[in-house]
Amino acid sequence: MAKGKPKNAFYAQSGGVTAVINASACGVLETARKYPKKIGKVYAGRNGIIGALTEDLIDTSKESVAAIKALRHTPSGAFGSCRYKLKSLEQNKREYDRLIEVFKAHDIGYFFYNGGGDSADTCLKVSQLSETLGYPIQAIHVPKTVDNDLPITDNCPGFGSVAKYIAVSTREASFDVASMAKTSTKVFILEVMGRHAGWIAAAGGLASTQDTEIPIVILFPEVSFDKAKFLATVDANVKKYGYCTVVVSEGVKSPDGKFLADQGLKDAFGHAQLGGVAPVVASIIKEGLGLKYHWGVADYLQRAARHIASKSDVDQAYAMGKAAVELAVKGKNSVMPTVERVSSKPYKWKVGVAPLNKVANVEKMMPKDFITDDGFGITAKCRTYLEPLIQGEDYPPYKNGMPQYVRLKNVAAKKKLGEFKL
Amino acid sequence: MAKGKPKNAFYAQSGGVTAVINASACGVLETARKYPKKIGKVYAGRNGIIGALTEDLIDTSKESVAAIKALRHTPSGAFGSCRYKLKSLEQNKREYDRLIEVFKAHDIGYFFYNGGGDSADTCLKVSQLSETLGYPIQAIHVPKTVDNDLPITDNCPGFGSVAKYIAVSTREASFDVASMAKTSTKVFILEVMGRHAGWIAAAGGLASTQDTEIPIVILFPEVSFDKAKFLATVDANVKKYGYCTVVVSEGVKSPDGKFLADQGLKDAFGHAQLGGVAPVVASIIKEGLGLKYHWGVADYLQRAARHIASKSDVDQAYAMGKAAVELAVKGKNSVMPTVERVSSKPYKWKVGVAPLNKVANVEKMMPKDFITDDGFGITAKCRTYLEPLIQGEDYPPYKNGMPQYVRLKNVAAKKKLGEFKL
Repeated sequence: MAKGKPKNAFYAQSGGVTAVINASACGVLETARKYPKKIGKVYAGRNGIIGALTEDLIDTSKESVAAIKALRHTPSGAFGSCRYKLKSLEQNKREYDRLIEVFKAHDIGYFFYNGGGDSADTCLKVSQLSETLGYPIQAIHVPKTVDNDLPITDNCPGFGSVAKYIAVSTREASFDVASMAKTSTKVFILEVMGRHAGWIAAAGGLASTQDTEIPIVILFPEVSFDKAKFLATVDANVKKYGYCTVVVSEGVKSPDGKFLADQGLKDAFGHAQLGGVAPVVASIIKEGLGLKYHWGVADYLQRAARHIASKSDVDQAYAMGKAAVELAVKGKNSVMPTVERVSSKPYKWKVGVAPLNKVANVEKMMPKDFITDDGFGITAKCRTYLEPLIQGEDYPPYKNGMPQYVRLKNVAAKKKLGEFKL
Repeated sequence: MAKGKPKNAFYAQSGGVTAVINASACGVLETARKYPKKIGKVYAGRNGIIGALTEDLIDTSKESVAAIKALRHTPSGAFGSCRYKLKSLEQNKREYDRLIEVFKAHDIGYFFYNGGGDSADTCLKVSQLSETLGYPIQAIHVPKTVDNDLPITDNCPGFGSVAKYIAVSTREASFDVASMAKTSTKVFILEVMGRHAGWIAAAGGLASTQDTEIPIVILFPEVSFDKAKFLATVDANVKKYGYCTVVVSEGVKSPDGKFLADQGLKDAFGHAQLGGVAPVVASIIKEGLGLKYHWGVADYLQRAARHIASKSDVDQAYAMGKAAVELAVKGKNSVMPTVERVSSKPYKWKVGVAPLNKVANVEKMMPKDFITDDGFGITAKCRTYLEPLIQGEDYPPYKNGMPQYVRLKNVAAKKKLGEFKL
């Protein structure tokens, strides 16, 4: 692939989007434009792999240099994302045949897929098309996930910015509740993402530092919820500091293994209500301690908060996109660029590379020694790991008080094939 | 008061805190230090008026110039706030006698109270102590409230920064849901503050502009919730744009006059659950349209978010504190400095002044012509009013990726009196 006539490339975004996935897109597109002898057009899939299957390809050559550059400071997925996992070749050969048909029709020789663990699996399957179905393609995965649960890479682009948002918000809300505690709210509860791993919840612990101590109780999905111990800890904090902040992962579970959020809430008409875990924890505090509380649920706000993105994270997201193209140009297939930590203090990192079959479908959990013995906090080791990831600010440009996020033209490439039913 | 030996001053923060109430404190303290011939020490009440009643006074002369300066970029109430309303003189003369006792003991001749409508009432009562109980004092109210519901002043310090946070967050989350909508979430619901007035919800409308159109449905407390019309509007947006964002005020009410949030939720054990309105709206959408949704509750995050404060708001908060001291030095009593709008485009404003008896206990609602006829959006007139208030960014300093918010020493002045039971 690296020699001869240039081949076109396919790029797509997959799974939950982040504040910096477009920075990776920016890295891919800007770098691809530097190798015109090897890479022709970059077609972006509209809504991830679905764009490839339905031949809904966006011709990124129609976008201006300025628009592509602005992707670096624009949150969300500029080409649309999807939650769609390719089945195995045995289960659905029709989809693979279709991919090859579309790739052939548009002379696509490079496949860049920007996503998390599930998407790495899709990318791995595509990378095997040369072997399995005799179609030559180089598939490179670009890591992305707020959950920080990909293996091998030190951390995942997307996570650092969520971590910064949660750390900053936790500090700010804690200052607020501390001001109110004398006659009003004494406990603030913030619900954060992370259904399986507690990385994002752990970031709440960064709100408290040596020069700004804050009593924070973290509820990790890795630690079974112990109601009595939790209430005793909150109570002790309120007695000592006058207030307490609770950061609770959406994935925290009761001893019976069920999500704490799943308390079978019903409204006045008996309809089931899908609540968050924050109000559940609030009720537990109200009932157990009788303290006045407030609760918040960050939800999409946390992963879309480009306005307070981590500079480390933006830089790494861009670097992963850039590295993916450089690996492709070097003839690599079935790999994923990674972040390799060189040192924590001062923070230094470089780009590494991992084989995709070691990445796909592997989930990296929080190490046990990142959580304090009482199960409610982060250790010094965890702090050393996390702190570099939220370093630096990378503010978007503003106009009339609002961040200027780009919307691409997203011009569709002309279809050459018949319709395909998903 | 303006002549002769300098008198000491009392300053306190009251009610819900904001991202910029400390900027007003900064304005008061820095300005007071410029008039040593007229103002001696500034004592801050620990936890608002309670600090005055219990003689828990903070000696702000013990704080460094740098610490006072840092208040300008620090959210929350540095001296602690309170929710405590003085009763009328007839109902509780004991409290007024105590205030005079404390003021006399500490030679206090100026009273600066930083709060909203209820606090203006407290300040008004104190301003009348000269007449009612023969104690000479000048009481000046410093406006503060995220609810933006004080009369006469064009807007209230605290509101602009919440408005900016909500506008920015709504834009970011809308970009997110737009990316996910093809195969996943189609509606995002954001719950915001504002139990009586829809000012904060209105700010969600600023997320959509001519160059960045976003389908947003706003549920105002001023507009009775019409379920069928709401569902039809969300449905039409999803059909047209692929997704829809809903910004819902915590104070939105059903046609029967009850809060929509108060749906009598019960958990599996039959305990009442205090939920937010966002999950209620989510359930209505799920049941009525069967669409996948996400919801967030900003809660304290919105009013504590100093990291994305509006520069207009910070400047005005500081100016109100400064003006309060200048009014005091000029011998004024029972007044409140105000923001007077000179023009919207370009935005120009100046400091005005209002008599306290026209401010206390008056609530400014959204004008009817600020809400579109369908009840779900903001008019051009509303936009012209709101846009200047979110103008400009005023970032705090960062260290290791975290905003550096100051914590004062808050050294207590020596008590001279006996205990007082609240």
